[in-house]
Amino acid sequence: MRIEILNTGTELMLGTTVNTHAAWLGGELFKLGLHVARQTTVPDGETIRDAMGEALERADVLIVTGGLGPTSDDLTREITAAVLGLDLVEDAAALRSMREFFAVRGRPMAESNLKQALAPAGAVVLPNPNGTAPGVYVPPGLNGRTNCAVFLLPGPPRELQPMAETEVFPQLRAMSGVSALTALELKFTGIGESDFHQGVDARLADITGLEYGYCAHIGEVDLRLIGPPDALACARALVLEKFREFLVSEDGTSLEATVVRLLTENRLTLATAESCTGGLISNRITDVPGASAVFTHGFVTYANAAKTSLLGVSQAELATHGAVSETVACQMAAGALCASGADIAVAVTGIAGPDGGMPEKPVGTAWIGLATRDGAVTAFKVFHPRNRHDFKLAVSQAALEAVRRCIISRKQPVTG
Amino acid sequence: MRIEILNTGTELMLGTTVNTHAAWLGGELFKLGLHVARQTTVPDGETIRDAMGEALERADVLIVTGGLGPTSDDLTREITAAVLGLDLVEDAAALRSMREFFAVRGRPMAESNLKQALAPAGAVVLPNPNGTAPGVYVPPGLNGRTNCAVFLLPGPPRELQPMAETEVFPQLRAMSGVSALTALELKFTGIGESDFHQGVDARLADITGLEYGYCAHIGEVDLRLIGPPDALACARALVLEKFREFLVSEDGTSLEATVVRLLTENRLTLATAESCTGGLISNRITDVPGASAVFTHGFVTYANAAKTSLLGVSQAELATHGAVSETVACQMAAGALCASGADIAVAVTGIAGPDGGMPEKPVGTAWIGLATRDGAVTAFKVFHPRNRHDFKLAVSQAALEAVRRCIISRKQPVTG
Repeated sequence: MRIEILNTGTELMLGTTVNTHAAWLGGELFKLGLHVARQTTVPDGETIRDAMGEALERADVLIVTGGLGPTSDDLTREITAAVLGLDLVEDAAALRSMREFFAVRGRPMAESNLKQALAPAGAVVLPNPNGTAPGVYVPPGLNGRTNCAVFLLPGPPRELQPMAETEVFPQLRAMSGVSALTALELKFTGIGESDFHQGVDARLADITGLEYGYCAHIGEVDLRLIGPPDALACARALVLEKFREFLVSEDGTSLEATVVRLLTENRLTLATAESCTGGLISNRITDVPGASAVFTHGFVTYANAAKTSLLGVSQAELATHGAVSETVACQMAAGALCASGADIAVAVTGIAGPDGGMPEKPVGTAWIGLATRDGAVTAFKVFHPRNRHDFKLAVSQAALEAVRRCIISRKQPVTG
Repeated sequence: MRIEILNTGTELMLGTTVNTHAAWLGGELFKLGLHVARQTTVPDGETIRDAMGEALERADVLIVTGGLGPTSDDLTREITAAVLGLDLVEDAAALRSMREFFAVRGRPMAESNLKQALAPAGAVVLPNPNGTAPGVYVPPGLNGRTNCAVFLLPGPPRELQPMAETEVFPQLRAMSGVSALTALELKFTGIGESDFHQGVDARLADITGLEYGYCAHIGEVDLRLIGPPDALACARALVLEKFREFLVSEDGTSLEATVVRLLTENRLTLATAESCTGGLISNRITDVPGASAVFTHGFVTYANAAKTSLLGVSQAELATHGAVSETVACQMAAGALCASGADIAVAVTGIAGPDGGMPEKPVGTAWIGLATRDGAVTAFKVFHPRNRHDFKLAVSQAALEAVRRCIISRKQPVTG
């Protein structure tokens, strides 16, 4: 089944908006065992006509995004009907639900919204509980010109994504008959994609029916697996045999959410003391709903004076070893633990750059300290010579990973 | 001049990588007064052939990304030569610079890298100082089949972007003859795209030769203008007459970088006290190089106990008014100013959700407090009923904007 995506929108051509629809749809379809053969983007307006006509020649399924709004450059409905040679007719149910959408919000419905209730004759109108623009599904063979099924989806992600999940994916799953496939996303930290290439990649390639893809982020690599259940089980076992200690989650859960879950399950609290990451670690933790139960205090001690006054780092040690040192990382962690009363404290101090590097401590150097209620205080060094933003991310990743291992090691050996 | 982009890469189809090349190239070309007519993505391998052949029929310029690496699915060079009917020949300069690339790094060059020195006969090889894959420029009319100019660029952004800037854009500028155009990016906060639609949009549309586009982010809208200098000056005056007080920067500089610049210029220091944003404000500030000169202390007081012990917030006030209140926001700001010795302290306390909302304080409510060395302490309420991530971003934006206005108001009226 050949699937194509046609994204429409001038904002996608001008660089003002990154096309996230293509990646999101591609990823979700991949989980269904389906592949996108081609993705095309064109500006709003008449240029959609040619691109759509060409795609209908090639594809079995065409998913079109955008251009369903009420303004004059929203022409996707009109062009689709014209290209398919179908009349545009008003859909009574669509009109009714649009009127309700505005009535509920106490806003008048503009005349221009009326055209959003139009759809090619015989097409199925897809309800949009999150906006005014209904979607459209034109089944294959509705006209004599094409056997391609066409879905028209609204542009805003918070309207498109629920509609795709409710209306499009079940339809595609039924059309493709690949419902026996399942998907798995294994998230690892502390290793890179190249470790997989050297480690297990060739053996994964030998598993019948398995498809897989890597997604490498900073300090993290996701392995997406799809296939029949037995292929998946085989692949999972193979990968975990080698990389279990680096596994963060098996369902795409982020490292920070995994840390919050582990803290919650173990009734532990965490404090952070951040210099070079400047609050990124606490920001990531507090991105997780429920973080308030396990995270209480964060210290962003960017200046040495703050390290001294808030965390009790010794001025003498700062003078002797410098702020980026094992001693200071340990004192920061111990100080944060003491000042917060938390069970675990993690501290980071490093040189983000672009300035501040020294021959013995180049830009990219960081120390990560860890203190726990039982009195243990340790620190280790990492080196991530990257730009400022990526450096912060890499160091925050190493710090969160240190917390994860710390919690796990309280109960079981790190390697399993 | 019709420009098309062809992005190649299976990772772009599987949802594992978002296509940032399309937006980046579109934005940079827009600044040159050039528009992308169509963008297409296809997986690695033979499928590139059809997409390239079709694009060559339509376009005057085709920019191809990816597939220049050493592995077996990197076929862009081979397919380009085949589609254009040109032989692939080894480029001596490319081979030499690849050998140097490896020699400098003390790594052996693999046999598989040799094919990266191949280019269609007569094409120009584009040097790649940031990687092993040279780019290729096939001038228009090199073969009898097409008058389309073709650029092949490597996939990694840190290789593609410098190569595009050095080798592609000057060539396109020369080909298009639109070198008189200039570009301007005005960044605003505190207003939305709809304010422009109601305010100045129709008048901008009347300016001869002006092209413009909006890019709306959370709490921020960027207005990109391109055109001849007089049209740009006219548009700028028109927009600033109405929205000057909301202007953050005229060169795309972020709000946080603007705040760091204003602090630096005015020799002021800043402290933060964050509850609901959990470190996002300090994280944004410390993303700016040089932040360490103006930002010293950040407090992430997620728990009430932290607000009390670190910032001296009164337990009685917490009990009476709750943590999300004007009084507590003021006390947090005043406490952070006192504990840090900074000139300005900004504090935020709010309900990020999904839980914790109350009828009188629904999810999305936040108070922002501001304290300054002269003894002034103020707070104001914002309401952003969004998901947790977007709420944090919106509140951090309002807090940084409050700091910006605070600094500016020390010297001049807010409205100009």
